[in-house]
Amino acid sequence: MASKNRLDKIVSLSKARGFIFQSSEIYGGLSAVYDYGPLGVELKRKINKAWWTAMTRKHDNIVGLDSAILMHPKVWKASGHVDSFSDPMIDDKQSKMRYRADILIEEHISKLREKGNEEHADHIQSLLDSAGTRSSMNEDLYAIIMEEQIKSPDSGAFDWTDVRQFNLMFKTQFGATASGEESEVYIRPETAQGIFVNFTNALNTTRQQVPFGIAQIGKAFRNEVVARQFVFRMREFEQMEMQYFVKPGTDSEQYQRWKEERIAWHKSLGIRPSKLRFHDHPEDKLAHYAKEAVDIQYEFPIGWQEVEGIHNRTDFDLGAHQEHSGKKMEYFDPSSQERYIPYVVETSIGLDRCLLMVLCDAFQEEEVPGDKEGTTETRTVLKLHPKLAPVTAGVFPLMKKPELKELAEKIKVDLSDEFDVQYDEKGSIGKRYRRQDEAGTPFCLTVDFDSLEDQKVTIRDRDTMKQERVEISKIDPYLRAKIKTWSPEEGQ
Amino acid sequence: MASKNRLDKIVSLSKARGFIFQSSEIYGGLSAVYDYGPLGVELKRKINKAWWTAMTRKHDNIVGLDSAILMHPKVWKASGHVDSFSDPMIDDKQSKMRYRADILIEEHISKLREKGNEEHADHIQSLLDSAGTRSSMNEDLYAIIMEEQIKSPDSGAFDWTDVRQFNLMFKTQFGATASGEESEVYIRPETAQGIFVNFTNALNTTRQQVPFGIAQIGKAFRNEVVARQFVFRMREFEQMEMQYFVKPGTDSEQYQRWKEERIAWHKSLGIRPSKLRFHDHPEDKLAHYAKEAVDIQYEFPIGWQEVEGIHNRTDFDLGAHQEHSGKKMEYFDPSSQERYIPYVVETSIGLDRCLLMVLCDAFQEEEVPGDKEGTTETRTVLKLHPKLAPVTAGVFPLMKKPELKELAEKIKVDLSDEFDVQYDEKGSIGKRYRRQDEAGTPFCLTVDFDSLEDQKVTIRDRDTMKQERVEISKIDPYLRAKIKTWSPEEGQ
Repeated sequence: MASKNRLDKIVSLSKARGFIFQSSEIYGGLSAVYDYGPLGVELKRKINKAWWTAMTRKHDNIVGLDSAILMHPKVWKASGHVDSFSDPMIDDKQSKMRYRADILIEEHISKLREKGNEEHADHIQSLLDSAGTRSSMNEDLYAIIMEEQIKSPDSGAFDWTDVRQFNLMFKTQFGATASGEESEVYIRPETAQGIFVNFTNALNTTRQQVPFGIAQIGKAFRNEVVARQFVFRMREFEQMEMQYFVKPGTDSEQYQRWKEERIAWHKSLGIRPSKLRFHDHPEDKLAHYAKEAVDIQYEFPIGWQEVEGIHNRTDFDLGAHQEHSGKKMEYFDPSSQERYIPYVVETSIGLDRCLLMVLCDAFQEEEVPGDKEGTTETRTVLKLHPKLAPVTAGVFPLMKKPELKELAEKIKVDLSDEFDVQYDEKGSIGKRYRRQDEAGTPFCLTVDFDSLEDQKVTIRDRDTMKQERVEISKIDPYLRAKIKTWSPEEGQ
Repeated sequence: MASKNRLDKIVSLSKARGFIFQSSEIYGGLSAVYDYGPLGVELKRKINKAWWTAMTRKHDNIVGLDSAILMHPKVWKASGHVDSFSDPMIDDKQSKMRYRADILIEEHISKLREKGNEEHADHIQSLLDSAGTRSSMNEDLYAIIMEEQIKSPDSGAFDWTDVRQFNLMFKTQFGATASGEESEVYIRPETAQGIFVNFTNALNTTRQQVPFGIAQIGKAFRNEVVARQFVFRMREFEQMEMQYFVKPGTDSEQYQRWKEERIAWHKSLGIRPSKLRFHDHPEDKLAHYAKEAVDIQYEFPIGWQEVEGIHNRTDFDLGAHQEHSGKKMEYFDPSSQERYIPYVVETSIGLDRCLLMVLCDAFQEEEVPGDKEGTTETRTVLKLHPKLAPVTAGVFPLMKKPELKELAEKIKVDLSDEFDVQYDEKGSIGKRYRRQDEAGTPFCLTVDFDSLEDQKVTIRDRDTMKQERVEISKIDPYLRAKIKTWSPEEGQ
């Protein structure tokens, strides 16, 4: 299946089955903002829970936090976001459209390569690379655009403004004091700073000792100009971040440890190991705060893309907040009697992108036997890990007979303390199976007339499509065992 | 205990034990914005889960949604927020401080009553009440302030600007197109509109039939001028809302049903029934969208306050979105073959305020026997419902001996699949009990030397402080049973 085609199908299924909708769709949508529908929100909550459990409940020395989206403006001064969290933009004076200067140049390079002009392309690429590291970045990018006579993609004009930096943070006015005193606040562009400014609070209230971590899940907002495919790059998104505070000198060892621990977590979601890899950031491309950095990438239909980043942030953030706030960000180590600002190893994953990875890894189209003897049909199925599936089990009465409905409803209610169960009596059993396949439901339980006698139901497995008769009193342990031992098929 | 004093103690405990911190505290804080610490985030997540489970998993016909905070600006035009979600403000020209005009007048009325001037107070109150319902509200409020010569609380001056309406929505600039084309977007002031604009999406993807509901938990933001005590009224807060779509004519019946169902939910959190009551909105005070409205109030230390609202919103919202978007918001009823815009019964609760209610209801100070024979001491304890407690069980080795530590660690790990368990080996058992009492931990398990022989632990009950020996293999069902059957003590 063509890759682009495959992503398109996943996007379509997401909309048709209620995983993901465009935000404010009835008003024409809001660019690069999405809403999660009935199935999507359940999947999102289960990924959230899987991360939270793995991070906090399973680590004695990692505590949780939920800091606010609105923060004091000085936080973003200290973190460097006010001064340098920006993109170089250029405006077409004729069409009034604004473009990212570096991306215009990248597209120009692609065109050169398409024309076989590799040598020139390499030259421009090296100019672009070095521009990105200089204080004269805006002027350098402008010079390339002038030299290469790059034209506006929309108007075709060659009539540009200067290149200027535009900050990616959303701003708003806080308070309603008399107009002169209104203060500007930012809507956080990342969740990490909420952890750093609460470092001392968390330390003092939990009696943790270094090394220890603080985990947080929450929304962040970036005024991205270039919206990417679907939920890959959104203006409003959710991060799951853990900052691990360590003794300086042990940071690289902890960084290695968290690399391993995090990729193991992705596998625990049922992601096929062959689709996961590390991608190290070369030293000359590290962010200003990082000593070491690596991405965990997943092979999406559109290629390998970052899902999670692990960063050795040193004492950059705590040091900056100590300097800007005047508050000590030190830790006193009772065993060595030393006082120091801890180093930080960060694990940072986008919940939305993780959800898209889960959908992409689960999406399959299979040729299966059709209703008529000898025919085949294509079934679309999401082979989600059962612990992540929005609906764990469908419960169906074979027919709309009162005695079957009653027993099916009873089974549904009994299982609902433990599992997400959906009762469905509409359409043929085959149609109900297909609907649940598209929703990623791993188990379908059918109540038939025999069930009234033998107190058993037929459980149909989503992946193998095999059916088993199981005693009603044993459904609960049956499902638990299946969920626990599930693993993905490689291939496809 | 004096009421104010009691709230102060709860605020102190919240900070000291890591439930709630002031946001951006190291930078002097951000007014009316709070962060949840390690214990607070767990409590918040458990209330979130209790609501979500009760709403979606336990109702076949209620589906979930997670819509974005950023929405198309037309949404807020349709909802009425752009035109009328505002407060009447007046500025003291001398101090440049801004005040809510109606609250200035309310405070004036209180002073009149304190002086025994009841008749005049009643007269001003009636002027204030009628001003609130008129299009000339600003002028009417201004007239009262002039007539009564109400002075500025800070400067004492009587030098006011006119009364003007200030919108409570936060605004930001969206996109980075050339300056002229930047568009203003609002940061949502409520979650409900995200549900209304997705009505058709949810209906089409889930094959629900009216009556059915959409449930959502998410952040909302209001630029409140008057910040109230603690997390009562915040600028950033979280709502748990369910919109129930019903056939017109059945709305009042459904409204009654949801009143009962929602107050039962509060009781299911372990809130003492004597502290809960309904407060009906009189007909002449209903919001513009409401046909019927009631608050569920809790008796906080500072008095009875709204925790949740149940509203009959009629077809106000769907009708408005149909008009503004040009998209049909109708439902076709297959059984009656009718086509109509459903009515909406809404249940809307503030998660933060609910959490404060839970803390207030659980907070107790008790005289208990002291360490020395014949003495007493005060213990502070949060008698939280065990299903909401941030830590379900503490596990302690009696002493720091390797064999006790090892067994305690093993018990901790085994229970961690199911429960939130905290291992603690620091300080005397008595001190560890007190720490867990303050955190609201319902069970403390102590491993002693006998445990190595008889494979039993001592389980101490937070509420009764009684101790029992329980077989290690039976801790799991023991805890489950206790959690299931727990109920609050009345009194205090």
